[in-house]
Amino acid sequence: MSNLSESVIFPKGQKITNNYFIGEAWLEMLVPFDTTFNCPVGNVTFEPGARNNWHKHAGGQILLVTSGIGYYQEEGKPVQVLHEGDVVKIAPNVKHWHGANPDSWFSHIAISTNVHRGDTEWLKPVTDEEYNNLNKA
Amino acid sequence: MSNLSESVIFPKGQKITNNYFIGEAWLEMLVPFDTTFNCPVGNVTFEPGARNNWHKHAGGQILLVTSGIGYYQEEGKPVQVLHEGDVVKIAPNVKHWHGANPDSWFSHIAISTNVHRGDTEWLKPVTDEEYNNLNKA
Repeated sequence: MSNLSESVIFPKGQKITNNYFIGEAWLEMLVPFDTTFNCPVGNVTFEPGARNNWHKHAGGQILLVTSGIGYYQEEGKPVQVLHEGDVVKIAPNVKHWHGANPDSWFSHIAISTNVHRGDTEWLKPVTDEEYNNLNKA
Repeated sequence: MSNLSESVIFPKGQKITNNYFIGEAWLEMLVPFDTTFNCPVGNVTFEPGARNNWHKHAGGQILLVTSGIGYYQEEGKPVQVLHEGDVVKIAPNVKHWHGANPDSWFSHIAISTNVHRGDTEWLKPVTDEEYNNLNKA
């Protein structure tokens, strides 16, 4: 198992305490929402096996992978394995989830785009069965 | 002198060939401009001593420092020394420049914000005299 226990470049931030994640994850807002930039930027760190629920962003989101190994999946598509330097463009209203590989920590920057279009819609969790089947694929 | 000769996370990209830089710099567009995201994201790498001209962004820009040691200066203010993990929020229409320290390579992600407000206005170079005086400060 990777012993990467925190983000290597940007601060790890605070533990996420909402109900939209399985496993532990941390968030540091690098750029909080404001009406000058209209572009919130966060650094998200997942412990091995952690992932967020299926969700949709009304305005889309961009992920920049900074460390570890992670997963990204859009509904009805195969999972993508993510590594340092990968960029994911999540179009508005596309149902998806992301998180760590079971054996590695995972960190990405998340840039919220077109924020005037609205917020994130949180949906069902990625169950252990779904997640464990990915690993066997 | 730092022997960091390229970006450690994101691709270094192509040498910048416009006339708005002194010294060599490289750009990889991680997210090109499009009307789905309205949020171009580039990775910029400066060789030691390289910097861009004074300029202004009509919609602002966010810098996320990923490696090396760099400088950021707004007109009429002291220079800021930048390190890995630093975040710079450049408000719309603020005259500024950025670049590497004389002894280190420097890389940052650049996020263009509020792109509907217009483009970048390029101004005068940061002369060797201005730049060398910074180093003595």
